[in-house]
Amino acid sequence: MRYCVIMCGGVGSRFWPFSREERPKQFLDFFGSGRSLLQLTFDRVLEVVPAERILLVTNHRYADLIRTQLPEVPAENILLEPARRNTAPCICWAARHIAALDPEASIVTLPSDHLVLKEKAFHTALRRGFEFVEAADRLLTLGIKPTSPQTGYGYIQQGAPVADTPDFFKVKSFTEKPDLELAKVFLDSGEFFWNAGIFLWKAKSILDAFNLHDPETAQVFDAGDGLYATPDEIPFIEKNFPNAPSNSIDYAIMEKARNVYVETVDLGWSDLGSWKALYETSPHDAEGNVTQNCRVLHHNCQDTIFAIDRADRIVVASGLKDYVVADAGNALLICPIAEEQRIRQVVNDVKERFGDDFI
Amino acid sequence: MRYCVIMCGGVGSRFWPFSREERPKQFLDFFGSGRSLLQLTFDRVLEVVPAERILLVTNHRYADLIRTQLPEVPAENILLEPARRNTAPCICWAARHIAALDPEASIVTLPSDHLVLKEKAFHTALRRGFEFVEAADRLLTLGIKPTSPQTGYGYIQQGAPVADTPDFFKVKSFTEKPDLELAKVFLDSGEFFWNAGIFLWKAKSILDAFNLHDPETAQVFDAGDGLYATPDEIPFIEKNFPNAPSNSIDYAIMEKARNVYVETVDLGWSDLGSWKALYETSPHDAEGNVTQNCRVLHHNCQDTIFAIDRADRIVVASGLKDYVVADAGNALLICPIAEEQRIRQVVNDVKERFGDDFI
Repeated sequence: MRYCVIMCGGVGSRFWPFSREERPKQFLDFFGSGRSLLQLTFDRVLEVVPAERILLVTNHRYADLIRTQLPEVPAENILLEPARRNTAPCICWAARHIAALDPEASIVTLPSDHLVLKEKAFHTALRRGFEFVEAADRLLTLGIKPTSPQTGYGYIQQGAPVADTPDFFKVKSFTEKPDLELAKVFLDSGEFFWNAGIFLWKAKSILDAFNLHDPETAQVFDAGDGLYATPDEIPFIEKNFPNAPSNSIDYAIMEKARNVYVETVDLGWSDLGSWKALYETSPHDAEGNVTQNCRVLHHNCQDTIFAIDRADRIVVASGLKDYVVADAGNALLICPIAEEQRIRQVVNDVKERFGDDFI
Repeated sequence: MRYCVIMCGGVGSRFWPFSREERPKQFLDFFGSGRSLLQLTFDRVLEVVPAERILLVTNHRYADLIRTQLPEVPAENILLEPARRNTAPCICWAARHIAALDPEASIVTLPSDHLVLKEKAFHTALRRGFEFVEAADRLLTLGIKPTSPQTGYGYIQQGAPVADTPDFFKVKSFTEKPDLELAKVFLDSGEFFWNAGIFLWKAKSILDAFNLHDPETAQVFDAGDGLYATPDEIPFIEKNFPNAPSNSIDYAIMEKARNVYVETVDLGWSDLGSWKALYETSPHDAEGNVTQNCRVLHHNCQDTIFAIDRADRIVVASGLKDYVVADAGNALLICPIAEEQRIRQVVNDVKERFGDDFI
């Protein structure tokens, strides 16, 4: 049967002061739609995988948030990591858990905090992807057709096409985030696709790949054989999960395995990884300003994004160009969009200077 | 005996969003000292005039605020105007009221929302001023020695010195706010002083001046003869005060009377009439930024004033130069200091667009 694993344990600080340690990005209602990014992701997957087979893997500190936001998810479908170990251990555990429920299961694994505007294309991509990985021992990643020379994304280079299966290719290489010049070359080549972190495989295929390419992680979880999906799973994980090395699935498996494929898709996708990305995916007024879920009176402002977390507040702004104005909870951020890479540093500075209450 | 009249009925919108219709500037704790500008004014006068002879004239809507902020003021010392009529009717009524208590009284009349840094000089100036107006039928205004070519103030030009009384001069002229070029000429001449709106006279002298120069106003209040400082005063005022023409004391009396004098003083004074004025009177950091009663982490900001009304909030700002960042209640203002003349217009726009809750 088909399963879904939504990874929702991240602590993004790039949207501070909106995202906070206690309430990271995936739990925020970014677009004022009434649903958080996690809820939107869940809704989006429901068309393809039923709620009872959607698993959420997260850090234990977010358990309550998830139960509140997704009450329809059965308690046993929430896998709580006792420590942060990046995506590889998370994916290995989830695959073990699902294999215990159904050894023949296939799985789509995806982040909880991305934007997908083309829902139908997403559903089609997932269904085609499931068929593709169920037909053979294959690891599949979705590659997003790039629309601009983004420097914030990793890229996947396509290799040989798969016979009789349009849009599916062997993966030739994974690349790190390029500089702008290289990103332009990638875009023009037509061979490079954004790595969206959306993966499909059979449980068996990914577990085999762990045995082969990341045996250290595989062994940590092999030790729990027979305990998964039983009452003994939680104590086992509590004790052993922290022993798994911290690693990303890209480094641990995808860049090493030989049976890696890419399905190239056009999903209206953004990782919403930065204010710039959010700016680009949001509707603009005539002066290029974006008002994110708030009321703003602006004069002589251009290409500026305004975000406030309280509907009962207003902003009056004048003379800002290419700025982020983000007002949330007990903090207000006013900074040029171009400097947003500094936000992570800023959050550290804030912590040092003003304490934990502000991060 | 010596009396003081503190005028505290103004609705300044220039410090929006800090000042609001329901809580104008004089009631705000601008400097985080724990005392509002009104309270600071009251404290400052107490050295010269005892509490029981300090009167407060204000709009009826601020009665509760005043009682809360100055519980030591006897209820009968709060004169509530039933309508806004600028300073002339306010001063005429207060003089009538005081004359009924003591026909020989002398009075200092002053605004409630100014800054005076040199308290001792202020006390000396008031004592010398009282002696000066008690000695003859004279109307006296304080003239502040200018320290820069301010375009936001009216100026007083000194005339002939008063014999044996240093710092006292006949007034040659009152001028409107000058442009920068003229303000520089004024400053260089040494003959021009800022008009601080602080006046001294005997009750009898100012009432005589009203009869002579503003008979329309004088007649409105003459009709209440015998009622002042009795229980019948309030109903009389409720009914008749609105009939007085709206006019400033400068236009109604000071620019017309022949017995007008100026006492030139150095008080460390500012009318705090604008963010710029507040900026100039506040301590700056190395980059010229002012943080008004708040916590700010700034990077690459210059000559910017940050004001927040809540101690539990922080601001992180980058790349602002010559800006005002003012965050108070349900509104946030970010605008170049040079544009602050627009704030009054902005407040109107806000009212039109978002409603009364924000002004």
